[in-house]
Amino acid sequence: MKTFSVTEFRKQFPILQTVSDSDNIIYFDNAATSQKPLVVVNASQHFYLKNNANVHRASHFLSAKATKSFEVVRAKALKLINANFENEIIWTKGTTDAINLVAQSYGLNFIKSTDEIVISAGEHHANIVPWQHVAQQTGATLVILPVDDNGVIDLNAAQKLITNKCKFLAVNHISNVIGKINPVKELIALAKQYKATTLIDGAQAIAHLHVDVQELDCDFYVFSAHKMYGPTGVGVLYGKQAILQSMPPYQFGGEMIKKVSFNGTSYNELPHKFEAGTPNIVGVIGLGACLDIFSDEQFTSMTHYEQQLNHYLYQQLNNIEQVQFLYQGCPDIPVFSFVLSGFHHQDVATFLDSKGIAVRAGHHCAMPLLESLGLNGSIRVSLAAYNTFNEVDVFIKQLQALCLGELSEKEQSSLSVASDIDLEFTSQEKILSLFGKATSWDLKHRQIMLLAKQLPRMKKGCRQQQYLINGCESDAWINANLNSATSQLSFQADSNAKVIRGLMVIILSVYQYKTPAQILDFDIEEYFQVLGLLQHLSPSRGNGIKAIVERIRAIANNHL
Amino acid sequence: MKTFSVTEFRKQFPILQTVSDSDNIIYFDNAATSQKPLVVVNASQHFYLKNNANVHRASHFLSAKATKSFEVVRAKALKLINANFENEIIWTKGTTDAINLVAQSYGLNFIKSTDEIVISAGEHHANIVPWQHVAQQTGATLVILPVDDNGVIDLNAAQKLITNKCKFLAVNHISNVIGKINPVKELIALAKQYKATTLIDGAQAIAHLHVDVQELDCDFYVFSAHKMYGPTGVGVLYGKQAILQSMPPYQFGGEMIKKVSFNGTSYNELPHKFEAGTPNIVGVIGLGACLDIFSDEQFTSMTHYEQQLNHYLYQQLNNIEQVQFLYQGCPDIPVFSFVLSGFHHQDVATFLDSKGIAVRAGHHCAMPLLESLGLNGSIRVSLAAYNTFNEVDVFIKQLQALCLGELSEKEQSSLSVASDIDLEFTSQEKILSLFGKATSWDLKHRQIMLLAKQLPRMKKGCRQQQYLINGCESDAWINANLNSATSQLSFQADSNAKVIRGLMVIILSVYQYKTPAQILDFDIEEYFQVLGLLQHLSPSRGNGIKAIVERIRAIANNHL
Repeated sequence: MKTFSVTEFRKQFPILQTVSDSDNIIYFDNAATSQKPLVVVNASQHFYLKNNANVHRASHFLSAKATKSFEVVRAKALKLINANFENEIIWTKGTTDAINLVAQSYGLNFIKSTDEIVISAGEHHANIVPWQHVAQQTGATLVILPVDDNGVIDLNAAQKLITNKCKFLAVNHISNVIGKINPVKELIALAKQYKATTLIDGAQAIAHLHVDVQELDCDFYVFSAHKMYGPTGVGVLYGKQAILQSMPPYQFGGEMIKKVSFNGTSYNELPHKFEAGTPNIVGVIGLGACLDIFSDEQFTSMTHYEQQLNHYLYQQLNNIEQVQFLYQGCPDIPVFSFVLSGFHHQDVATFLDSKGIAVRAGHHCAMPLLESLGLNGSIRVSLAAYNTFNEVDVFIKQLQALCLGELSEKEQSSLSVASDIDLEFTSQEKILSLFGKATSWDLKHRQIMLLAKQLPRMKKGCRQQQYLINGCESDAWINANLNSATSQLSFQADSNAKVIRGLMVIILSVYQYKTPAQILDFDIEEYFQVLGLLQHLSPSRGNGIKAIVERIRAIANNHL
Repeated sequence: MKTFSVTEFRKQFPILQTVSDSDNIIYFDNAATSQKPLVVVNASQHFYLKNNANVHRASHFLSAKATKSFEVVRAKALKLINANFENEIIWTKGTTDAINLVAQSYGLNFIKSTDEIVISAGEHHANIVPWQHVAQQTGATLVILPVDDNGVIDLNAAQKLITNKCKFLAVNHISNVIGKINPVKELIALAKQYKATTLIDGAQAIAHLHVDVQELDCDFYVFSAHKMYGPTGVGVLYGKQAILQSMPPYQFGGEMIKKVSFNGTSYNELPHKFEAGTPNIVGVIGLGACLDIFSDEQFTSMTHYEQQLNHYLYQQLNNIEQVQFLYQGCPDIPVFSFVLSGFHHQDVATFLDSKGIAVRAGHHCAMPLLESLGLNGSIRVSLAAYNTFNEVDVFIKQLQALCLGELSEKEQSSLSVASDIDLEFTSQEKILSLFGKATSWDLKHRQIMLLAKQLPRMKKGCRQQQYLINGCESDAWINANLNSATSQLSFQADSNAKVIRGLMVIILSVYQYKTPAQILDFDIEEYFQVLGLLQHLSPSRGNGIKAIVERIRAIANNHL
């Protein structure tokens, strides 16, 4: 057995060394997407420069080469999950595409109004919304299996909730929020008692576990390449041959036909029946290259290393008093979700980012789970096999520094709530001068957090739905009043994340007490550019800078 | 205006120089997929090594960088086709995915049983089969616009066939078989008279024309990146904002939601509503890089060069007596379809391949068009801006050599039809010796063609449906008899392509007069490897080596 060496493995990921001009990045956002090793980058490049052609349908040398290197990956994927036949491996765009394929091709055709579709409370939106749609279309009932105190799907409850009405079971192998392995084998066996069809969402499991679909005996297993060191835009739908054969096609076009005429069309055999159009050839080639990581004997040793990392991080986080895990117990793979008491999750993520540590804050595409805990978000720290104990130490040190620092909500809430309307905001000139001196993202971040203190809180009663900008990571409120004498708009703004409040001060420094026309004329993009903020602004939708600016401009537009 | 230089442009495509060990390739299969320039290869590599992260939902530096480089491509795509708003640009997997999105989201929801869906006789399967499905599901009628003698959609006929029953018009901008520009602006105007919704399949047009969706006034315009020098697995659905807003989502999951709860889910705004799941980020980045080819001032000059190439090739092909174009007149872009009288199209393609020239043979995913001409296939030669006059000369020279050569069907049909059963086939040893001496693909190809003469034709009456292996490029027939005394199988085989007959001789050299068990035991993959054929075998589905071997093994299996 080859022993896994993190030092050797890291050499495959130059981005971990070179991403920032000054510092290295600590990338702890692997549950969202992993970094890509050089073998993947090089395989894509080699394909483009040596073998590029369309696959399957041509009589020329290049196409033969392309088809061969493309189809060989199917055999590799079969081996990875121990499928029975190569035609049980269907290339998709990713996990979401795969679940939608099953939901629409199987679900809409074989599920009836008296049936139940069983999912769990811990699913990713991609394994909820497609089934809500099927339930809506067919009249079937969606049954939700609860998770227990450890965040794992509750088998006792499942035994009661999975009944002879169950036609379809769709659950995750490992939650993208909690990092715990669900008892999928037992759940599948339960569902099989009632002849239900089963799908396992393996998006988070595939990079961390040995998956054996025959041992699990699931009907479908789905995963994405991009969370297992592979490229974006490609994923696998595994399905048992007989069930795939029984399903109608999902998409229609080239590749998936046998014969087309205006009198009728017959469809091709598996796997082509489900692969309409030119596939993501270079994506599959890249996936093939990254599969070598998993087929290699080193995989067992690699997961062993991940486990050590996992337990170490759990221990370290447990030592921080303010850390409150969403569920008790150490995760099975290094995916940790917690809140830091006294801090908004987005502020934690932004603080860590200013120290070069990438984590995630928000609902992690699992709103129902977060909501069931009374949370609108959490911090998620997710590691891969290239992460190190040293990185964990740096991260813990920064988290401790944050806890000891001056940024807690408690302290902040002691700030007096000023009158809502008549505020003097920090001027644009002042902000330009402050940020001119803040030469690093770290310093700029501090500046934003200091500015946040200048924004008076809106009274809770004023934080109404109509003023809300609902976001992935935090909520923001903006309200405006027009002074009919001066035709100037005055804004009140607030957010539950301090970093957003700081950004609001910066934004309002140019918009407060301006006329609608002045507001619409101002080039704020350039202003952010000058402040050196553009490359650091959160791309989170809804509550990002962009959404706030858009709301202000919409208000201005209405008052033109 | 910058002048296009083919010499400079070719430097972006190292594959054109280095693909084969001995010779350069002449790549004339651009309508299937184009080669990728270094700018695309480098942009993908740069993204992987510097900016890789998931987009839209994270509060860290890398994600901000990734999101920025991802979203900037939307603005570029808007500019390319002159869309009105950035949120009218939806990323898809490609043209086929885009048409399926519209067919299922718009078609299944807004088309009724009394409506007509109008397409043309010249469509690619991707713009036929999705609409057959919609017609089937909704009860609507599919109306087929004919093409005229030039292969262009017949406007006169369209004026009669597009009536107030027309709810949807879906036609191609340029046919992937004929290379002629259809009068799409006029067709759209016709359809708009009856308030029909319109979709233009721009897969073939986008690399060769200035497309202006506002000028066309189409509701949807779709194309793939991989036919315009970009990566596989990414394409664009342009849709008018209002119509996209009125449509329900197509796929469900992350990104496309606003709020998910088990009580109900609300959907995100455009473009995210139609972009469920992690998108093909690196694909979009690659597309962004290749768009610079089109936004550049050189594009006009580039298309001018293509036109010169186009007319030159047309002239040269016209000089070859045996060339019979599918439709009269010079194409509008360099996509030529013809048959070579006396030769099967697959034999032409294989011969050219043995000379390092990649063209396509078959039905080009447009079976109904080919069938309407009484053809089961044609040769297609499709050029891109990196092709040269010199390449055209080499191609024409080889085509002339073929016509002057000894491979015509006429000559071959004069071969005596031997008795169907008792044949002595060339032995395996003989074939190994013949191919051992044939050191290049060119020589191996000749050998295959010589062997083809040894395969007696099946009587036409014996070429029955039950023996048929129906393929993309040619048809093949295999029949077997079991000698109950010896338990040996004897095979008869034939194909309308000579190259397939030659391959059949090679295959039968190991299978003829063997017992079923012997047949199933033999490792033919290794045999092909030794013959040096594996890397050149046609990947065409159905009638390739693989399908023939599979049929023989299936027969053997039945006789076990």
